[in-house]
Amino acid sequence: MTNNKIKVFAPATIANVTCGFDILGFPLDGVGDEVIVRTMNEPGVKIVAIHGAEGLPLDPNKNVSGKVALEMLKEAKSDLGIEMELVKGIHPGSGMGSSASSSAGAAFAVNELLGQPFNEKDLVRFAMEGERVASGVPHADNVAPAVMGGFTLVRSYDPLDLIKLSTPADLWCTVIHPQLQLKTEMSRNLLRKQIPLKTAVQQWGNVAGLVAGLYKEDYDLIGRSLIDVVAEPSRSILIPGFKELKEAAIQAGGLGGGIAGSGPSVYILSKGEETARKVEKAFEEVYTPTGIKFNIYVSRLASTGARIIE
Amino acid sequence: MTNNKIKVFAPATIANVTCGFDILGFPLDGVGDEVIVRTMNEPGVKIVAIHGAEGLPLDPNKNVSGKVALEMLKEAKSDLGIEMELVKGIHPGSGMGSSASSSAGAAFAVNELLGQPFNEKDLVRFAMEGERVASGVPHADNVAPAVMGGFTLVRSYDPLDLIKLSTPADLWCTVIHPQLQLKTEMSRNLLRKQIPLKTAVQQWGNVAGLVAGLYKEDYDLIGRSLIDVVAEPSRSILIPGFKELKEAAIQAGGLGGGIAGSGPSVYILSKGEETARKVEKAFEEVYTPTGIKFNIYVSRLASTGARIIE
Repeated sequence: MTNNKIKVFAPATIANVTCGFDILGFPLDGVGDEVIVRTMNEPGVKIVAIHGAEGLPLDPNKNVSGKVALEMLKEAKSDLGIEMELVKGIHPGSGMGSSASSSAGAAFAVNELLGQPFNEKDLVRFAMEGERVASGVPHADNVAPAVMGGFTLVRSYDPLDLIKLSTPADLWCTVIHPQLQLKTEMSRNLLRKQIPLKTAVQQWGNVAGLVAGLYKEDYDLIGRSLIDVVAEPSRSILIPGFKELKEAAIQAGGLGGGIAGSGPSVYILSKGEETARKVEKAFEEVYTPTGIKFNIYVSRLASTGARIIE
Repeated sequence: MTNNKIKVFAPATIANVTCGFDILGFPLDGVGDEVIVRTMNEPGVKIVAIHGAEGLPLDPNKNVSGKVALEMLKEAKSDLGIEMELVKGIHPGSGMGSSASSSAGAAFAVNELLGQPFNEKDLVRFAMEGERVASGVPHADNVAPAVMGGFTLVRSYDPLDLIKLSTPADLWCTVIHPQLQLKTEMSRNLLRKQIPLKTAVQQWGNVAGLVAGLYKEDYDLIGRSLIDVVAEPSRSILIPGFKELKEAAIQAGGLGGGIAGSGPSVYILSKGEETARKVEKAFEEVYTPTGIKFNIYVSRLASTGARIIE
């Protein structure tokens, strides 16, 4: 045991990243959840409080952070007792990796409490168990960047192969979260199970362009590659003003973007903070007249993932 | 007019590159066609000789090099007369970009004769007209690397967006060309027009991994990413001994590979010449007992494309 109280921050993440459906994700800087863990006398996991969001379960088997902690204790064969407290900085159901942040934060924090028996890939694997609780499917495209930091590729699940890609230093993200409930399943049901080969080729051409753009720090290429011909055409209809948001953002100088995760948030990448702030303003101008409540986040892409803050 | 006789070499190319179906290609070093151009007195294009291959048309409208030259003269509004001679180093129908090499070589050579009015992207565009003559479709995945050199991405056709990717210096290729006729159309007919979304996601995960591997010079990641779940499963049945070739090559230390273009050639990438030579030997051992005639080429990946050699 290295410490008996640890506070961990885990960032919000944008998965899919337009052309990179189910394989790409990146973390935001300064937006995320906090997970506070303390040792307690009786073995097991106890969630003592959740701040900043309502209706999340305190039962550790049903709570994403709790489940992650339980799985880690089990695999480590530890009889440690862990008390957890969660401070949600990300709205559940926003498409900004809310459950992934709590899962990644828990994985990181519990590993510290246990004296770091697990490596980074293990932490992603445990955090995926949190995703399984949240959505029924152990996706890695949010938890991998939330744990590892930077633009992250899930190349394959079997075996799990996670690649930390390059993240250009001047890449900024503007995200608007319209306060609508949109279940992942609902958004997922809009996807066709079969797609034309021609469409798939277009998509992987753009995936290749995006990855090349990240390494070349070619912001224009990144922008040109942010085209989604697979999910966005059907999913975007669930997001009020999607087209208008995107058009206004591009007009304001944004490179490109689309649906954050499975929505309803919409993200735009920009070169530099100044443009990212212009995109924020453009988003506000589109959304204010609708009367729909919204939050906007402007952030550099984070090169670090979950980390101890206290 | 900068010169009145020019000899150009244009490399053989491997397109598709397993996971990069229809978007990726790379050139070989030292294997390719030669295109010799001379000015002549009467305007137009005349193909005076084709060495190294039989049955190719001398009519410039039906010959890939001739067609490229005609299109260039037309666009340049030039009344130059051009005599062409071709030395085929690549067997037509091998899957090693035979028509692309002749097209790229012609585009490069004619541009020199005309005093370089066209840029690199124009040359690819003209060479694509040669591909249209050869197969009915103006593909760019062979002609782009044949013109530009290095690992090349065709991100999109409309607009045409060509990206020169990174090519690790120690990346070698072993190609076996079984001397079987295999028409591109035949191979293309084996492809389904629709693919499962899940399959497509696997493929673009590998595309992203391959591109990242090229930039990171991570040979192991390159190898892990060389998986084709789209074309290879159906197309490879047309190639005798495909599985055996691949297994023997991996056993010999090769990173990975698959069908070259639409076949019947099979390529394997290796780190370093020594391993590439071991793969050559493994190929020989698999193919010698079959009685099928074959050629094997071992080459570093070329970072340069079409170029003047005389």
